[in-house]
Amino acid sequence: MQGNLMYTLGQAAEMTKIITEEDVFLFAGITGDRNPVHISKEFAAKTRFGERIAHGILTAGLISAVIGMKLPGPGCLYVSQTLQFLGPVKIGDEITARAEIVEVISEKRLRLRTQCINQRKETVLDGEAIIVPPRPVRGKQANS
Amino acid sequence: MQGNLMYTLGQAAEMTKIITEEDVFLFAGITGDRNPVHISKEFAAKTRFGERIAHGILTAGLISAVIGMKLPGPGCLYVSQTLQFLGPVKIGDEITARAEIVEVISEKRLRLRTQCINQRKETVLDGEAIIVPPRPVRGKQANS
Repeated sequence: MQGNLMYTLGQAAEMTKIITEEDVFLFAGITGDRNPVHISKEFAAKTRFGERIAHGILTAGLISAVIGMKLPGPGCLYVSQTLQFLGPVKIGDEITARAEIVEVISEKRLRLRTQCINQRKETVLDGEAIIVPPRPVRGKQANS
Repeated sequence: MQGNLMYTLGQAAEMTKIITEEDVFLFAGITGDRNPVHISKEFAAKTRFGERIAHGILTAGLISAVIGMKLPGPGCLYVSQTLQFLGPVKIGDEITARAEIVEVISEKRLRLRTQCINQRKETVLDGEAIIVPPRPVRGKQANS
């Protein structure tokens, strides 16, 4: 029961980060996604956005960060994630990733609403995650 | 109509990559997700997996790559992605990301089944993407 009691509906956490050109280039290098909408100024200038946009999955990485670092934090594991990409993230945008517990499914499963919001308070990414919280160890978090 | 005729049910593409320790550390740095299941050998040794695992969203980045580079390729945009994490990806695993058109919703929307499969033919990530294919420009792809 102890694991269960540690989590309550409405608990939320946030992390904020400015997306840099370096982030986008490094992400392209790690994943191999060199889609020119992300890395070519010339190509991107002709798109609907008029400039390069960050990879959607890079923005989703900030959700992974808030889940993995804050709620529920170190030791947790992903079961699933849905992602609706609602607007572009441009280089220099300040993105706040937010996770909120919307269901305590069991001691071993939490459902979180996950969103990324830009500096203009526009939701650029929305979705839900199901995660396995860290195992309690001798009455403590596994990471303590 | 032209854009529509370019895509057919069952069209598929793949990309394969070995996940390295550097990929995991760089992804942790970019996103801020330093969950010790990904970056601490000592912590990870005590988990069910016995060793560090890659960030799930890093593996999802390989799906982004196959979509952004191959099917439909440069210029395409994400609408949504679902991700079910079915098994761990460990450092050194060789991951094949696969995308297959399962529905041509309209000239401007394709539904893809998206999977990541390891070197033992285990599906480690499964899901679906909805994407906007590149706009045809003067009868050609925008990227040509």
